[in-house]
Amino acid sequence: MTDLTPTRDDRFSFGLWTVGWQGVDVFGGAVRPLLDPVEAVHRLAELGAAAVTFHDDDLVPDDASRDATLRRFTAALEETGMGVEMATTNLFGAPVFKDGGFTANDRAVRRYAIAKVLRNIDLAAELGARTYVLWGGREGAESGGSKDVAAALDRYKEALDLLCAYVRDQGYDIRFALEPKPNEPRGDILLPSIGHALAFIDELDEPGRVGLNPEVGHEEMAGLNFAQGIAQALWHDKLFHIDLNGQHGPRFDQDLRFGAGNLRGAFWTVDTMLGSGTGKAYDGYVHFDYKPPRTEDIDGVWETARACMRNYLILRDKVRAFRADPAVAEALEAAKVAELAVPTLADGESLDALRNEAHDPVALGERGLQFERLDQLAMEHLLGVR
Amino acid sequence: MTDLTPTRDDRFSFGLWTVGWQGVDVFGGAVRPLLDPVEAVHRLAELGAAAVTFHDDDLVPDDASRDATLRRFTAALEETGMGVEMATTNLFGAPVFKDGGFTANDRAVRRYAIAKVLRNIDLAAELGARTYVLWGGREGAESGGSKDVAAALDRYKEALDLLCAYVRDQGYDIRFALEPKPNEPRGDILLPSIGHALAFIDELDEPGRVGLNPEVGHEEMAGLNFAQGIAQALWHDKLFHIDLNGQHGPRFDQDLRFGAGNLRGAFWTVDTMLGSGTGKAYDGYVHFDYKPPRTEDIDGVWETARACMRNYLILRDKVRAFRADPAVAEALEAAKVAELAVPTLADGESLDALRNEAHDPVALGERGLQFERLDQLAMEHLLGVR
Amino acid sequence: MTDLTPTRDDRFSFGLWTVGWQGVDVFGGAVRPLLDPVEAVHRLAELGAAAVTFHDDDLVPDDASRDATLRRFTAALEETGMGVEMATTNLFGAPVFKDGGFTANDRAVRRYAIAKVLRNIDLAAELGARTYVLWGGREGAESGGSKDVAAALDRYKEALDLLCAYVRDQGYDIRFALEPKPNEPRGDILLPSIGHALAFIDELDEPGRVGLNPEVGHEEMAGLNFAQGIAQALWHDKLFHIDLNGQHGPRFDQDLRFGAGNLRGAFWTVDTMLGSGTGKAYDGYVHFDYKPPRTEDIDGVWETARACMRNYLILRDKVRAFRADPAVAEALEAAKVAELAVPTLADGESLDALRNEAHDPVALGERGLQFERLDQLAMEHLLGVR
Amino acid sequence: MTDLTPTRDDRFSFGLWTVGWQGVDVFGGAVRPLLDPVEAVHRLAELGAAAVTFHDDDLVPDDASRDATLRRFTAALEETGMGVEMATTNLFGAPVFKDGGFTANDRAVRRYAIAKVLRNIDLAAELGARTYVLWGGREGAESGGSKDVAAALDRYKEALDLLCAYVRDQGYDIRFALEPKPNEPRGDILLPSIGHALAFIDELDEPGRVGLNPEVGHEEMAGLNFAQGIAQALWHDKLFHIDLNGQHGPRFDQDLRFGAGNLRGAFWTVDTMLGSGTGKAYDGYVHFDYKPPRTEDIDGVWETARACMRNYLILRDKVRAFRADPAVAEALEAAKVAELAVPTLADGESLDALRNEAHDPVALGERGLQFERLDQLAMEHLLGVR
Repeated sequence: MTDLTPTRDDRFSFGLWTVGWQGVDVFGGAVRPLLDPVEAVHRLAELGAAAVTFHDDDLVPDDASRDATLRRFTAALEETGMGVEMATTNLFGAPVFKDGGFTANDRAVRRYAIAKVLRNIDLAAELGARTYVLWGGREGAESGGSKDVAAALDRYKEALDLLCAYVRDQGYDIRFALEPKPNEPRGDILLPSIGHALAFIDELDEPGRVGLNPEVGHEEMAGLNFAQGIAQALWHDKLFHIDLNGQHGPRFDQDLRFGAGNLRGAFWTVDTMLGSGTGKAYDGYVHFDYKPPRTEDIDGVWETARACMRNYLILRDKVRAFRADPAVAEALEAAKVAELAVPTLADGESLDALRNEAHDPVALGERGLQFERLDQLAMEHLLGVR
Repeated sequence: MTDLTPTRDDRFSFGLWTVGWQGVDVFGGAVRPLLDPVEAVHRLAELGAAAVTFHDDDLVPDDASRDATLRRFTAALEETGMGVEMATTNLFGAPVFKDGGFTANDRAVRRYAIAKVLRNIDLAAELGARTYVLWGGREGAESGGSKDVAAALDRYKEALDLLCAYVRDQGYDIRFALEPKPNEPRGDILLPSIGHALAFIDELDEPGRVGLNPEVGHEEMAGLNFAQGIAQALWHDKLFHIDLNGQHGPRFDQDLRFGAGNLRGAFWTVDTMLGSGTGKAYDGYVHFDYKPPRTEDIDGVWETARACMRNYLILRDKVRAFRADPAVAEALEAAKVAELAVPTLADGESLDALRNEAHDPVALGERGLQFERLDQLAMEHLLGVR
Repeated sequence: MTDLTPTRDDRFSFGLWTVGWQGVDVFGGAVRPLLDPVEAVHRLAELGAAAVTFHDDDLVPDDASRDATLRRFTAALEETGMGVEMATTNLFGAPVFKDGGFTANDRAVRRYAIAKVLRNIDLAAELGARTYVLWGGREGAESGGSKDVAAALDRYKEALDLLCAYVRDQGYDIRFALEPKPNEPRGDILLPSIGHALAFIDELDEPGRVGLNPEVGHEEMAGLNFAQGIAQALWHDKLFHIDLNGQHGPRFDQDLRFGAGNLRGAFWTVDTMLGSGTGKAYDGYVHFDYKPPRTEDIDGVWETARACMRNYLILRDKVRAFRADPAVAEALEAAKVAELAVPTLADGESLDALRNEAHDPVALGERGLQFERLDQLAMEHLLGVR
Repeated sequence: MTDLTPTRDDRFSFGLWTVGWQGVDVFGGAVRPLLDPVEAVHRLAELGAAAVTFHDDDLVPDDASRDATLRRFTAALEETGMGVEMATTNLFGAPVFKDGGFTANDRAVRRYAIAKVLRNIDLAAELGARTYVLWGGREGAESGGSKDVAAALDRYKEALDLLCAYVRDQGYDIRFALEPKPNEPRGDILLPSIGHALAFIDELDEPGRVGLNPEVGHEEMAGLNFAQGIAQALWHDKLFHIDLNGQHGPRFDQDLRFGAGNLRGAFWTVDTMLGSGTGKAYDGYVHFDYKPPRTEDIDGVWETARACMRNYLILRDKVRAFRADPAVAEALEAAKVAELAVPTLADGESLDALRNEAHDPVALGERGLQFERLDQLAMEHLLGVR
């Protein structure tokens, strides 16, 4: 096994709001004091992360302290060599956003939401972020009558088109990444899955400027296979960014550290990120979006940050060993996995030829596919017994 | 309340495999005898349906009886005035399809699958069907290594492109409709939701010829809001067909009669089909894809078919009354639902203007949105107490 | 339809924390100002409720204001004729309870938890509450190693045994009611369902003094049928109290107003509460434990409280009409529902007789059970079309 | 790592219906030929299993071949040294059981069901089985009106009481084990979870003779934590038997090989079976109840059987290493896990003393619990990197 110490080349990044989460939930208040973003930068740098990401309200919650905070923050970045690779806007915490931002019924709210994003895009650009994430956590509804979905999608599109135009006009080197989620905090959220967001992007004025930032737990809250989801996003050239964490299936958003929750899913997630099979590889930052449980004090917070990166490195090693194992190559061959990359119709062949061919479905149906042997090999790599 | 007797104008249709389901499941065998398609046509016609739909294997399971069956079947259609509005292919029942059809690893299986579809498209065209559904129930995997998702999507696209070309070349007046499903019978199915299928369509050679056939239960198995899902499909002009039934959230595919399961969801589904708010209306057949429970004999089967149509008519009445109620209009106004159709940026306004405007988020956040009053009005229409 | 105005005889009650919820969730802060418990009492009385319920921290969050608050509160109760029918302890909000109360690993925390409960039981008794609810929302774990489940159940039992002894020794006319929940805010909560809590009670020193307070949404978060769950609780004579609200299946705890979410389930819930079939009826308060959505201001809050009661009354009317309908009686007969109350072995019959009897499983299997006709009648009563 | 070859001492057992599953599901027919039980015994013996288990219909589906089959079967057992450790009855496959067996509305069906069980108990006793499992897969309903739950529980109890009396009267050394499941194939199944079944047992005439046979996937279909569930069952002394397999949360019953699905859950399951912490250990057979996927031919079937046992042995090794690791001991100490076994009230201490003690909840709340460090240690043992 290779060294499991994270380095800058691993391009790990963390949201300020992750290690900074104070533990407020529906049933209880803060369990940890406010974490200074400067402290977060230093500690994450020590642990081996390469970058941080932020919501406007994480970093510059109010105007009075904005300039001073930014001075201290940029100094910390310089001192540590950490970057800001992504930024995003908090369009969900304040009461004004209780019905969403871009798709709030109240037009004045929508106007404020867009203005808030514009302002933070400027800061994002100034700090060097090249990805701007949009998580529309409050864009949705609890009931069918209160939201005109067609109008909501029109407004969502309008907002994205305006933001794209703004970034283009300003000459910023920034792409947008939509983050889907099925529900929580709204009863149902618009663009609830990777697929819905991908489809939406195709309707935008500048689809090339917008991609996805899928989160493990968000897809798994809908019982969807995350690795399969990001494989489709990569197939569409739309995996602009990623949020790694852990979840136990359909229930509240757990935001566990990466690896916790669905560990087998995490293995295939890393495999997909590395470009298994004929898929494209993900080439962005490895970003963690999780919440250190309320049971932890600040030492426990750093333990979870360390563990997120460590688990990724462990899984990356295992995935590479799996893909390099001759027994796996043989099992893949037996399972005809590579044969799926061969076009079904031969080059130049007519449909008629295929149609008139003799087929023997009974014989074909008797063939065992040997998928379980292959999966058991993956299991044994994961468990470290090969 | 208007008359609740279905007529041809209501355009109700049923799959032959619905009333014909014999009750085989993972844990038990057939509880009902084979239902003759001719009998199904007659009984559904008597109940008020306008059309039937079929898989090749429902109608013409073997070549020996094919011609005789088709003669009897077309005679029944003529006699009753029933139509065939949609057809589809069984690419999931036979052992040959245990790893799927279009995306089976085995190229010979894929070739057989396409040939099987082509053959049945000819029959569909001959019988007058204008929608051809593709449900890829076995296109998927139980484990991450056995399926190269990128290659699978390439093959899926290849198959769709070939089928579109075939239909175009033959001059058939047929459109394809993909039916998404998250899982069951495969562990995870490709194109698991409305969104994933919409995104996929955009990559096809002839995206205009392909749309969706979403099924209530399939989206609800992923905890997704069906009404919101078809609203997005309509927004993309892709709701080509629909499968109505009932489901109790994330669990096995229940295929209950329409109305059973999530009744409030059924209300909003019908509301969306009728084009609530600014949305487009669905203008296709109202198709039921359900399974009469194993507890029923053939009389119970017809009772469920009757009830599917009746529940739709009841809900349609209620939706219309809800939308016509002045108290609802007032509540919609109070909830600013129509304001969402107003562009956020005024015509000709610059982003700068919006940005420089003074915003008062605190005041905006204090405003109550009165969504619950509106939803309670919907509830009372549904319950028949208004 | 009878009058749908709630009266004291309907015995509706509300938690102070329900109408008083300020809207804090994981993703956002308070959207409504603090609600004075005195104001809550007055407004709920006006709406027709008969009683309120409270956590210690809802009513008397701090010692300094305790006496003054209690004076004002009891005055309001007297003035309005409202009662306090149930009380409970907040063992989940403060950081001290981040690992639970009765089952916290830290013994000092457990001691504090018990002391906090004892203190509030005295207040509950003083205010006339006869049910004391225990919701162990933080009794659980996110990971397998951190909680010794056997020891936790020992401590849970110890706490309940101590509390029972205390109530007995003080001569309080109080029974305890455990409220199960599968998860949220902990990853997995001890006693996750009605069943687990029922089984646990049987191990207590005084099982007769402890029953259940099941909540609609909590069971539905596990995909369980709430009506069936409370029917089993009634069968065990353990439905001491109830929490009505609404939920959309496995996802975060939505705490919607009663009726919203699974409406068909709500119908059967009320049917079960009224003692359908051979079941015992529930004879306690009809208690609502829900959260007015964050979209609402205080007017919306009262609208939701009103709607909870109204929906219960509507459903009660419909259930009674369903059970009184001769067509339903006939359908029940056809479905042999009452035959299930007939012992399988005749009085005095030997097992040998049953065993040696001739059985004709094929003929028995051919019989249709006509359950769908019965269910459609229920549906039509619910929809108000019969 | 110790040798991972299964031996008789590991006490692995398999249902004949597992390796014998032919692949029939709701959407497709058999993909594998019938497997001769004799062949199953030989192959499982070669792989290292110690015993088989069976439904009556797996082994002796019809009377004509019964005697011959039993002769061949017992000969195979003798030849291989394999035992029959458990038996059960198929009360779900035939049409007669479409509304269940013990709780079918139709009394004649209930009588047949009991007779069928009695007959197979005799065979079970003859073959040496000491556990008799009852999975009531069809005991339930799709709709609220069709099943009187109180009467159903009465009949369920009647059936169990009769069976207990029979076994006692015959002098059989047999205990019963109920197998809970939340749904599928019925919409909702009676006794849906470990907890519900435990509570039910307490109402029986001879509760000591009845315990549980929980199945991993069945609890996980309800989103429940299996390890926590069996820990509670052990706490009640009711874990009579176990069904190991794999599942991906709330969806259809996947019956994956053990280890597949929720791997982290499998680790804690084995830890609980071995009696972690203060819990009792499970001392029965390690029984696998899974379905080799339809993608496999018979070679794949044996591969999955092999893998079930191998994964158990791997996890058992890892659990032992985890519990023996000094770093884990230290982390458990830091997390105060053992402190939960200390009574909250000291021996002889009065509640008053506890109550009058000074508590410092703020200080207690500031303490970090270090659960994440402990869980990461478990993760690293699981991944084989410690």
